[in-house]
Amino acid sequence: MVVHEVPSGTRCFDWVVPKEWAIRDAYIIAPDGSKVLDFSDSNLHVVNYSVPVDMEIDFDDLQPHLHSLPEQPQAIPYVTSYYKEDWGYCLPHAVRENLPSGRYRVRIDSDLKDGNLTYGEIFLRGASDREVLISTYVCHPSMANNELSGPCVTAQLAQWLRDQDRKYSYRILFVPETIGAICYISHHLPQLKEKTIAGFVMTCVGDERAWSFMPSRQGNTLTDRVARHVLQHIAPDYKEYSYLERGSDERQYCSPGVDLPVASVMRSKYATYPEYHTSLDNMELVTPTGLGQAFVAHQKMIEVLEGDCTPTYQILCEPKMSNRGLRPTIGKVGSANDSRNMMNLLAYADGNRPLLEIAEIIGVPAWELRQIAAALADLNLLRVEDHS
Amino acid sequence: MVVHEVPSGTRCFDWVVPKEWAIRDAYIIAPDGSKVLDFSDSNLHVVNYSVPVDMEIDFDDLQPHLHSLPEQPQAIPYVTSYYKEDWGYCLPHAVRENLPSGRYRVRIDSDLKDGNLTYGEIFLRGASDREVLISTYVCHPSMANNELSGPCVTAQLAQWLRDQDRKYSYRILFVPETIGAICYISHHLPQLKEKTIAGFVMTCVGDERAWSFMPSRQGNTLTDRVARHVLQHIAPDYKEYSYLERGSDERQYCSPGVDLPVASVMRSKYATYPEYHTSLDNMELVTPTGLGQAFVAHQKMIEVLEGDCTPTYQILCEPKMSNRGLRPTIGKVGSANDSRNMMNLLAYADGNRPLLEIAEIIGVPAWELRQIAAALADLNLLRVEDHS
Amino acid sequence: MVVHEVPSGTRCFDWVVPKEWAIRDAYIIAPDGSKVLDFSDSNLHVVNYSVPVDMEIDFDDLQPHLHSLPEQPQAIPYVTSYYKEDWGYCLPHAVRENLPSGRYRVRIDSDLKDGNLTYGEIFLRGASDREVLISTYVCHPSMANNELSGPCVTAQLAQWLRDQDRKYSYRILFVPETIGAICYISHHLPQLKEKTIAGFVMTCVGDERAWSFMPSRQGNTLTDRVARHVLQHIAPDYKEYSYLERGSDERQYCSPGVDLPVASVMRSKYATYPEYHTSLDNMELVTPTGLGQAFVAHQKMIEVLEGDCTPTYQILCEPKMSNRGLRPTIGKVGSANDSRNMMNLLAYADGNRPLLEIAEIIGVPAWELRQIAAALADLNLLRVEDHS
Repeated sequence: MVVHEVPSGTRCFDWVVPKEWAIRDAYIIAPDGSKVLDFSDSNLHVVNYSVPVDMEIDFDDLQPHLHSLPEQPQAIPYVTSYYKEDWGYCLPHAVRENLPSGRYRVRIDSDLKDGNLTYGEIFLRGASDREVLISTYVCHPSMANNELSGPCVTAQLAQWLRDQDRKYSYRILFVPETIGAICYISHHLPQLKEKTIAGFVMTCVGDERAWSFMPSRQGNTLTDRVARHVLQHIAPDYKEYSYLERGSDERQYCSPGVDLPVASVMRSKYATYPEYHTSLDNMELVTPTGLGQAFVAHQKMIEVLEGDCTPTYQILCEPKMSNRGLRPTIGKVGSANDSRNMMNLLAYADGNRPLLEIAEIIGVPAWELRQIAAALADLNLLRVEDHS
Repeated sequence: MVVHEVPSGTRCFDWVVPKEWAIRDAYIIAPDGSKVLDFSDSNLHVVNYSVPVDMEIDFDDLQPHLHSLPEQPQAIPYVTSYYKEDWGYCLPHAVRENLPSGRYRVRIDSDLKDGNLTYGEIFLRGASDREVLISTYVCHPSMANNELSGPCVTAQLAQWLRDQDRKYSYRILFVPETIGAICYISHHLPQLKEKTIAGFVMTCVGDERAWSFMPSRQGNTLTDRVARHVLQHIAPDYKEYSYLERGSDERQYCSPGVDLPVASVMRSKYATYPEYHTSLDNMELVTPTGLGQAFVAHQKMIEVLEGDCTPTYQILCEPKMSNRGLRPTIGKVGSANDSRNMMNLLAYADGNRPLLEIAEIIGVPAWELRQIAAALADLNLLRVEDHS
Repeated sequence: MVVHEVPSGTRCFDWVVPKEWAIRDAYIIAPDGSKVLDFSDSNLHVVNYSVPVDMEIDFDDLQPHLHSLPEQPQAIPYVTSYYKEDWGYCLPHAVRENLPSGRYRVRIDSDLKDGNLTYGEIFLRGASDREVLISTYVCHPSMANNELSGPCVTAQLAQWLRDQDRKYSYRILFVPETIGAICYISHHLPQLKEKTIAGFVMTCVGDERAWSFMPSRQGNTLTDRVARHVLQHIAPDYKEYSYLERGSDERQYCSPGVDLPVASVMRSKYATYPEYHTSLDNMELVTPTGLGQAFVAHQKMIEVLEGDCTPTYQILCEPKMSNRGLRPTIGKVGSANDSRNMMNLLAYADGNRPLLEIAEIIGVPAWELRQIAAALADLNLLRVEDHS
């Protein structure tokens, strides 16, 4: 991974890279000298981007700087103040309710100064210079489903991809949400537009509750088609959201004039589950099973992308399969339905339909049909023209 | 309004302007000398286009000349005999049933002679010479929903339009149904075809029961799209009829070779409500509220037509709205959803979609979205290209 | 009908015409000397294509050569062994269960030797050299719905077509299933592709239970459209199968690179009814009524194909029908809905829509609308341009 630094003040379309925030310590001391909260217990305790503060303050004056959730009294909320200079603390409502009146000591040992926006980029070259974009965000990894799960599964995918024979090249980004994506796009737009054939924003890929799909703005790109195909087979009860319910970096990648084919396959979508943006979005919500299933879903999507091709018949009318020992089963592939799938694949291999479309017609996973296509190509019953 | 006269005998495509009918008086006197009915009470009492008659007649011979409705015994039916010379009277079945035998005196003081077909035309010039056609009919204004409501609301629209800044020109016709529309088309077809971008037959726009939509023959013209859009917002439970159920002047305006984009937004559609074509279609059925709502519906359709435009992004990726004091609300426009609508409009303003299409995607009224587009154009976030 | 012979060993794409099988006699004699079964009772008793056999055999060794259906103990199953040399007998399970142990005499007096594949072809020339293909199969006429009904109804259609004024030419084939169709295609592909505008595989057209439709592979050819139109009017509850459930010679005619517009209108589809491929598929299942209805359905499809045309208005706006004595009814055509259908036909006769499409819009049978179009053409209200 190459780590890039973009200095504060750099213009990115309508935006400017903000100052860099460093936080070292933060606490509140109650009138009786006890610590109400301590940054070292949870970095959610401090409003992100808080300016430094070190003073005594009356309980009433402290109130506007405290954030808590009456409906979730045990949760520490996640609060940011990126573009307005401010400071504050987040704490469980149950704790807040028991705070006595009096004079408090508040201290936030932070810096807000010129620095850099930092992002990571992995580029895995494939046989073709056409690219699949995978973008995840690293701006609030203190929470688990949204959003440490995204970088986690992305890293795992990168590791797996590194060892694959790749038709396509893969551009994998670890950026801060919004400003990071805008920054990247503003510096690489022509090549992104020229080369990107599919893309995914990797977010909320850790829990085991829902399967969710956020389509691209156009809604019918190759990415959308591949994502729906895989979800229909691995999670047929998945929920497809409208692009009107978007909320992550597809907002930038799909924006007019950028128009990349980027979608998101998620488990519980951001802003739809109660633990979202609180300390309860933790490793009880996210599980190894959930992470693993999301990894497999993305693996399948990549397999479908990589394996897509246009198969063309090589023999007119149905071939005589018994001549080739191909009825009723093909040993190599194995499933009991293989013979039927094989005949169906031959029936639609008219040279005008991508394998993915044939898989949709037949109702079988494209990654299985790809193996059947390969077997039939070995028998000279099909010619397979790879997409690239 | 310019009033035009077309002489009887004038050929209009397959038709000929018929003789002009004048009616001055009509009555029936019973054997006992009492008046059974009198034209001065209701002009529905005479079969329209009755030839003059003045004679005594036996009760039995009178029967074929009487029209009444056994199922609606209080109603006077509306009967015409435009193309066959005949005479007759219409009366409540309750009255008819009590008529004694004997010798009756019948008198219809009418003329059927060469004269003119009369129609009115208002032309309001706009910035563009492309036209919106509004056609209503004036042939049976004795009844309220069908059809005095049509000329009423049309006149009100004309008055309102006169004082508007108009992008389009408006051609507003008050014609007798069928023959009037055919007559107008036969004299103005090339210019109608060249200039008309949308059109409405204004009929049955007075009651408060249903909302009805009669699409154009093609079914997907700009008129259809605008009408459905407005109805979906102001009357989502409206009923869309099939063009097979047509019955007014869209039969002429949409006929093959004429092919104007003409549709009707109505309340209770002709031939679907029990009072239709009887004396019960009166001012109890039609109300000021009903007329006003139909007026507003047409106003909205015109606003959508006038305001349609293609908005194009001026900044790549999402603009930083907080720089412009635009989050969370825009003071100028006001609704609590404005921020979301604004971001959604920007998200779809790719220069390929008319505002109307974006309004359909977002699910907001195009007349509201037009104001948001204007606000964003003022901020140089959008360029708005007017249609014309 | 021309009868063609294609010698064994002839190559047909991926296939080779097999040896010809002749069967003269076959039986099994039980240890007590009684005949267990006799070919003269039912030719289903012998596995089709059985090699000759004449020997004594132990009951246990006989078992692999016996075929019966435990779930249908009275039925003789239909079994073939076309491409593997073998022999066997088919019998009711009820009979099989009562067979004693011991030594059996088996004799099959058959030949499997070089000969011919035989098929019949009827060609009926029409005004145009564009062709309608009707293909049926003659390989297992021992059973009734599948498949003697196919040749039966086809022969009847050929007889009827012979006496019609034909716009199109008709190519009618009686072939063995699969190998016969492949053989025919392999010898006539260019002309089939050039000339065939529609086609039907005639199979399972004899019972009175279901109506079934197997579309062509493309699913939207003229054949498909005509078939759906006719079925919607004569059997609106018909079942449309997916091409994935295909099973007859559309597998060859619709295969990639052949791509003929061939579909099947059936009663109970092969492989969906319990009597299928057993001795119970007999003349109790197939009835004169069932055969007759299937004949009429195909007649209607041919009428719709032959009658399709593009009608164009000859008068702008609605014609004045009363001038022509055409309201409220047209004597010549007759139905009470004629006046409405006539006006609707005129309303859509814009010169861009085939009559079939207008019939679909109006919701009336195209074969009735064709008569109305002819009446209107006689009145010079329409110009009718025949397809050819």
